Amino acid sequence: RINSGRLWDSLMEMAKIGPGVAGGNNRQTLTDADAEGRAVFQTWCEAAGMTTGVDAMGTMFMTRAGTDPEALPVYVGSHLDTQPTGGKYDGVLGVLGALELVRTLNDLDIRTKHPIVVTNWANEEGARFAPAMLASGVFAGKHTLDYAYGRTDLEGKTYGGELARIGWKGEEEVGARRMHAYYELHIEQGPILEAEGREIGVVTHCQGLWWLEFTLTGKEAHTGSTPMAMRTNAGLAMARILEMVQEVAMAHQPNAVGGVGQMQFTPNSRNVLPGKVVFTVDIRSPDLDKLTSMRSRIEARAAEICAGLGVECAVEPVGHFDPVTFAPDLVANVRAAAERLGYSHMDLVSGAGHDACWAAAVAPATMVMCPCVGGLSHNEAEEITPEWAAAGTDVLLHAVLETAGI
Amino acid sequence: RINSGRLWDSLMEMAKIGPGVAGGNNRQTLTDADAEGRAVFQTWCEAAGMTTGVDAMGTMFMTRAGTDPEALPVYVGSHLDTQPTGGKYDGVLGVLGALELVRTLNDLDIRTKHPIVVTNWANEEGARFAPAMLASGVFAGKHTLDYAYGRTDLEGKTYGGELARIGWKGEEEVGARRMHAYYELHIEQGPILEAEGREIGVVTHCQGLWWLEFTLTGKEAHTGSTPMAMRTNAGLAMARILEMVQEVAMAHQPNAVGGVGQMQFTPNSRNVLPGKVVFTVDIRSPDLDKLTSMRSRIEARAAEICAGLGVECAVEPVGHFDPVTFAPDLVANVRAAAERLGYSHMDLVSGAGHDACWAAAVAPATMVMCPCVGGLSHNEAEEITPEWAAAGTDVLLHAVLETAGI
Ligand SMILES: NC(=O)NCCC(=O)O
Ligand SMILES: NC(=O)NCCC(=O)O
Repeated sequence: RINSGRLWDSLMEMAKIGPGVAGGNNRQTLTDADAEGRAVFQTWCEAAGMTTGVDAMGTMFMTRAGTDPEALPVYVGSHLDTQPTGGKYDGVLGVLGALELVRTLNDLDIRTKHPIVVTNWANEEGARFAPAMLASGVFAGKHTLDYAYGRTDLEGKTYGGELARIGWKGEEEVGARRMHAYYELHIEQGPILEAEGREIGVVTHCQGLWWLEFTLTGKEAHTGSTPMAMRTNAGLAMARILEMVQEVAMAHQPNAVGGVGQMQFTPNSRNVLPGKVVFTVDIRSPDLDKLTSMRSRIEARAAEICAGLGVECAVEPVGHFDPVTFAPDLVANVRAAAERLGYSHMDLVSGAGHDACWAAAVAPATMVMCPCVGGLSHNEAEEITPEWAAAGTDVLLHAVLETAGI
Repeated sequence: RINSGRLWDSLMEMAKIGPGVAGGNNRQTLTDADAEGRAVFQTWCEAAGMTTGVDAMGTMFMTRAGTDPEALPVYVGSHLDTQPTGGKYDGVLGVLGALELVRTLNDLDIRTKHPIVVTNWANEEGARFAPAMLASGVFAGKHTLDYAYGRTDLEGKTYGGELARIGWKGEEEVGARRMHAYYELHIEQGPILEAEGREIGVVTHCQGLWWLEFTLTGKEAHTGSTPMAMRTNAGLAMARILEMVQEVAMAHQPNAVGGVGQMQFTPNSRNVLPGKVVFTVDIRSPDLDKLTSMRSRIEARAAEICAGLGVECAVEPVGHFDPVTFAPDLVANVRAAAERLGYSHMDLVSGAGHDACWAAAVAPATMVMCPCVGGLSHNEAEEITPEWAAAGTDVLLHAVLETAGI
């Protein structure tokens, strides 16, 4: 079993870096706070005997050597970046849980056959630069490095520029590494485990996603002196599209979600009908047919809504992954580990996307989940218990040992 | 008749200060560009023999002395501040038209009995600091100075702080001046004059307004792992309110408008359901009963919509004026001037709010309007012709002379 107190202390130490405004964190990717978090994490890893590798996307690969020089490493990790109003555990538990796993092996003087690489993927959240899971996506060959470097935040700063600025642009070619397997521990970010009273989620699948960025072009005009009949109202078109996305998601129940988190009016003045409204629709389903059907219905109906109002409608996909089925052998290892350790468990489909989803494209991969209070995540009030964190990390340790070999 | 070429040259000179991105202007109130525009305007006025007065709200009063030391001044003006993506004429024509009027009197060596005060009201637009017509509102006793100083922009900067920063906080007590009368020339900002083929709008009324700032509080949560049934979706509530505002405005036709120009999602991340959505509903009507009825229907139905979704709804009025009836004597002067000069004209209700609406609370007041292309305003593409500008300024000159006396 891992050292629960040490794991918790590390989580609380990391949470001091990039504090939020309500008890959580704002340690968005490629900010100064991210750089500070990376440096602390590197210090901890090197103190645990690991060596540092950084690739050209800024992903950190911290290696604990194995006993077989021929054996490919087992990768274990997640991400240290957070949402602008994020929690202390989303991603962080997976990275520091992997570190705790190595610390525990050190304590017990256990050497594994395969090296273990504790991994901190860059820009998992996609909050600052869409899409999410950007570095693991480049690693898996889903995006080019040029595409990733050119992604911009709301201020127009690029991924490439910001990565260089914070000093974490590594030399290593992205995706050159070969993985024996990939494991990721993560909080559920949903309500099921807590509601069912289970300590461990054995993650068999991850639902697929589309991020559809809508740019609606209306006609900037005075809110007072422009008669209703003369308006080309992009804001009204947006409102109708949001209601329609809700309807489409409800029509695809169960196992489908749809919503909008990001919205920008231009020029954003109280007495100006917006000339431009940009927002991103987030739709997901574990069922590829449903996901595809939602996307095409939303695009078709948005085009109708906009045509009816004379508003121009452009849609650009800025994030996508198909539903993922995790490697059955690794899933079985996780289930067996939970059994062996006496933790209650159940099979789970991940509602959120994870770096494991891209890793699954290039290696056998799976995930371990632990509950979070009220299913709440992407909220500073996100909470877990030390016991849940320890249970998840114990299961991670045993599953990884099974794959890495002693 | 005024000097049309000189007026146009001044308009084009001023348009160089705080250029926009598409041929218009971004000279928002209390920015560096606003300070630059004020300084240039002051130089021009002083060169035309006027003296400078500035009140504690930053409004500029440029005085041309009269022949009767007892006579109260006739005020003539508008505003030099613009929307973030504003036109070159909205407000500016009224200020520089008033300056041109004085320059013409100088050319013709005409002294008036009453002094003439060319006025540049501060923060007419309300784009940066709500409400609109803030300085004239304080002048008319509608707001306190403390209220005005405490108004904040989206970055949290205050009116008082920014006014001091740009160095235009005057010594004069706001509203201490007494006005014999107030005239304002402005572009229509609506489509009627052009559609009807008239050169001059004789403004008899101004419609009333409410700005209702909605703050919707939902529950920040992950867009992927939060099931539809567990969402407290402030974004969806916003969409329903926007559609409802449209319905309420349509149910109050004719002579009613409603729309939304400003919108902010928090935390504004693609994979986070917004915890907070803030937006301002702008409703207007020349009919006080309609205006009141729209406001109460919107607030009642918004409360129902939010209750249905579990979203908290708070509404704060951040701008208001009742419909205004302008002084019949002054209106008659404008109509007579247009007749005398041979300009086609018609009576008009102003769709936009103007400083004249507040001035009307403390003095006889009215407005002169000229057409603008396509009725377009609050858009960088706002356009007028030199002939329209000259016609409006000619009428302004004759109406003001009638009131100021020779
Ligand atoms: N786990 C997580 O929140 N990932 C961000 C990508 C997503 O939106 O699913
Ligand atoms: N004239 C003008 O655009 N004024 C701004 C106040 C309003 O929104 O009516």
